[in-house]
Amino acid sequence: MNWIEIAGHTGAFLSSVTFIPQVYKAWQTKSVGDLSLAMILIVITSTVIWLVYGVSLVLWPVIIANTIIFFLASLLLVFKLVFK
Amino acid sequence: MNWIEIAGHTGAFLSSVTFIPQVYKAWQTKSVGDLSLAMILIVITSTVIWLVYGVSLVLWPVIIANTIIFFLASLLLVFKLVFK
Repeated sequence: MNWIEIAGHTGAFLSSVTFIPQVYKAWQTKSVGDLSLAMILIVITSTVIWLVYGVSLVLWPVIIANTIIFFLASLLLVFKLVFK
Repeated sequence: MNWIEIAGHTGAFLSSVTFIPQVYKAWQTKSVGDLSLAMILIVITSTVIWLVYGVSLVLWPVIIANTIIFFLASLLLVFKLVFK
């Protein structure tokens, strides 16, 4: 694995875990008023589209990263709708 | 352009604009307490790594999308540090 591939895998990993601290914070505080609902909906929509793309071309990093992001963003959406 | 390419471009576009509504909301409300600082820092770090990857392989969608995300996430970081 050369350094460009390492950069790609590192980027995919970081993108996958992006929303973990936000989900954790929202769960801890039960406060989501400052979170943009539009942002969450865009993230969910984009992951679905990236999954279509990734599955079509059998790009596993794209599939795995977007599956994780989809799950985390969906959790954020539930928190956004449940916590007031 | 086939439908897979259209999906890729649509995904890249949506990923690029993800943080626009969040930046707008933070600017309007001047309230960022519910935003995770760790999330913002992960986004900035990942875009820098994706830019290294994109520039190395001359992947313009990766370069353009991550430049936009880097700019928006940096704005969010400034808001997070300035607004209390």
